Amino acid sequence: MPFQRMITLTTDFGLTEHYVGAMKGVIYSINPTAQVVDITNAVQSFDVLDGALAIAQAYHCFPKDTVHVVVVDPGVGGARRPIIATIGQYLFVAPDNGVLSLVYEREERVMVRHITSEHYFHHPVSNTFHGRDVFAPVAAYLSKGVDTAKFGDEISDYVRFLAPKPKATSEKAWKGIVLKTDKFGNLVTNVTPKDIPQIFDGAASSFRIAVGKAEVTTLRTNYADGPPGELFAILGSSGFLEISTNKGAASRAAGADKGSEVTVTIA
Amino acid sequence: MPFQRMITLTTDFGLTEHYVGAMKGVIYSINPTAQVVDITNAVQSFDVLDGALAIAQAYHCFPKDTVHVVVVDPGVGGARRPIIATIGQYLFVAPDNGVLSLVYEREERVMVRHITSEHYFHHPVSNTFHGRDVFAPVAAYLSKGVDTAKFGDEISDYVRFLAPKPKATSEKAWKGIVLKTDKFGNLVTNVTPKDIPQIFDGAASSFRIAVGKAEVTTLRTNYADGPPGELFAILGSSGFLEISTNKGAASRAAGADKGSEVTVTIA
Amino acid sequence: MPFQRMITLTTDFGLTEHYVGAMKGVIYSINPTAQVVDITNAVQSFDVLDGALAIAQAYHCFPKDTVHVVVVDPGVGGARRPIIATIGQYLFVAPDNGVLSLVYEREERVMVRHITSEHYFHHPVSNTFHGRDVFAPVAAYLSKGVDTAKFGDEISDYVRFLAPKPKATSEKAWKGIVLKTDKFGNLVTNVTPKDIPQIFDGAASSFRIAVGKAEVTTLRTNYADGPPGELFAILGSSGFLEISTNKGAASRAAGADKGSEVTVTIA
Repeated sequence: MPFQRMITLTTDFGLTEHYVGAMKGVIYSINPTAQVVDITNAVQSFDVLDGALAIAQAYHCFPKDTVHVVVVDPGVGGARRPIIATIGQYLFVAPDNGVLSLVYEREERVMVRHITSEHYFHHPVSNTFHGRDVFAPVAAYLSKGVDTAKFGDEISDYVRFLAPKPKATSEKAWKGIVLKTDKFGNLVTNVTPKDIPQIFDGAASSFRIAVGKAEVTTLRTNYADGPPGELFAILGSSGFLEISTNKGAASRAAGADKGSEVTVTIA
Repeated sequence: MPFQRMITLTTDFGLTEHYVGAMKGVIYSINPTAQVVDITNAVQSFDVLDGALAIAQAYHCFPKDTVHVVVVDPGVGGARRPIIATIGQYLFVAPDNGVLSLVYEREERVMVRHITSEHYFHHPVSNTFHGRDVFAPVAAYLSKGVDTAKFGDEISDYVRFLAPKPKATSEKAWKGIVLKTDKFGNLVTNVTPKDIPQIFDGAASSFRIAVGKAEVTTLRTNYADGPPGELFAILGSSGFLEISTNKGAASRAAGADKGSEVTVTIA
Repeated sequence: MPFQRMITLTTDFGLTEHYVGAMKGVIYSINPTAQVVDITNAVQSFDVLDGALAIAQAYHCFPKDTVHVVVVDPGVGGARRPIIATIGQYLFVAPDNGVLSLVYEREERVMVRHITSEHYFHHPVSNTFHGRDVFAPVAAYLSKGVDTAKFGDEISDYVRFLAPKPKATSEKAWKGIVLKTDKFGNLVTNVTPKDIPQIFDGAASSFRIAVGKAEVTTLRTNYADGPPGELFAILGSSGFLEISTNKGAASRAAGADKGSEVTVTIA
């Protein structure tokens, strides 16, 4: 078999309409032997940060040379540019709205091109569905080995934002936020071991995390260690501090959700 | 590799049970190298029109010769017939309940067969899950190149309904409906540029669209042009007039949903 | 092409995060030509019985030699063992928490190994996401034909529970439960034709099934036979008695759901 790049999809198009199916149809029409894999198509609508988190936590699990298509695109049809980004060992196809920010952050080699070659688009190009008309066909051609240089010129002023980081409010206190509530009800915060190592390495004799109406003072290494009903802190699989509970939804127990403030104090 | 047809699935079986997985298992048992792609499996339960809309908006994105399996089948196990329809460049496998109506409408060449060859079924055939026992195995054999004539005789009295069209109530007024609310909260109406060209070609100096508690007087060409909170009209990617808002759910803002009346008046 | 086993996924990881995508990435990194099929990733969170039902109703539809990955794993990172089970013609990769119980029940040949060869894991192994770090990579190596004996020793004390069965409370009365409400609102009970054959073979001149606020006295062979609004009993495609209604949600009509008591009496 000739060289081929795998394609993944991370979008907010949802599963209740034909949107993702239409994208896949366009891809297979261009490359009938494409391998297309969903990362998630249920990113929260219009939520660029939610999409940025999803792709940043999964892209590196895939084989090198994979083409990651990331479409959370509230600016579709407007001035924002479509881009191809070569980042580390991967290619990304996305709107230039910062949805790749957390990937840029994790890799050293970044090269971004503004996609301008309409030759590779699905015509007629709509104003409202570039997932189908721009990003899917570009990914399909990339999967067949078309060189990135064919799609447009390199740019350096691409959009990137900084992920929200916890802030020290004193020598022993920080303010962070809940980045998201996952399917299990775990509260994924923006606190990492780099931000407050004392919690994770045992240097702090005790700590207190307040979120919603909950106060958490225990760090556990796995969910099953928690006695029924206890809320505890745990280092999640994506490297963030999570507030969790054994076989239950911490978000409900704490009365907290995406965007809730998290305050951490150590002794 | 020998000739093979791609298979797509459009069903109301949902994602929370084993139903779609069982269909795929049956397909791969018959054709281990099948390519199976989901269009959507979250069609609204029992809702033949919702399924008809989904497949009509995606089938033409796929490579020619694709076998589209469309199962929204409240009459399963009863008198309704299973059919194979050759429509344009594609094959469709579905219950004969009108779920292909919007595809018939868009193509000139239509040939429909009543599937009667139980040889191609998954046995024992249940009364309640023809997705697994009839439609999936028939699609699998078609994907391997079995001729449509082997499955049953041609029929001409297949079921088709007319999609609901907007009606003129005066020379300058129309009544339509909301066909569906999509994942983003866009209200997809049944109004197309053919029905009321004056809105889209600028011939009407002004127009007014009433839906739910909202009045819309602006047509935009992309979502991002709308100022925060404004409801506007836009030509959606499927060719229908949509009522939308920038980064928000128009359905919630308008207090409208699937089935809501839409009235259009022009100056 | 060399020998290859298909891989299926049955998990409670949901569709709103990157979890399932990360598992697939790990699989494709190890076996770029893997065939990965979702059975369902929307098993109810932490609900081992719900996962056991899903896999038991679909595994036998797949080609022999398929590797079924089943991850409903509230004990992740704790003492529970990861296992490979050879059951009938299939391989299963799962936590040893009983999630394969209903499969063990249906097959005669069972051989279970405790996975201990960390050589086949995705490193570093987290404490909270063995779907990505243990089960996915093990399945990928199995799909390439690595022998099960390489992963660990055989064990005989694996966990299995008995599915809840209906109990006779008199010669003509039984108590069962609702195992689940499916996407259509059908109430899937734990009653099978083996438990109360009189309902299904016509030996009982009449019967009465009480669930929630509903009383059901009719057995139908397909959904469409039911007059509007009637609740009836039907033998579902998985071999369980279901309480259903034509084009509607029986669960809502009966005010019943998963866990509701079902009482059956015959004349």
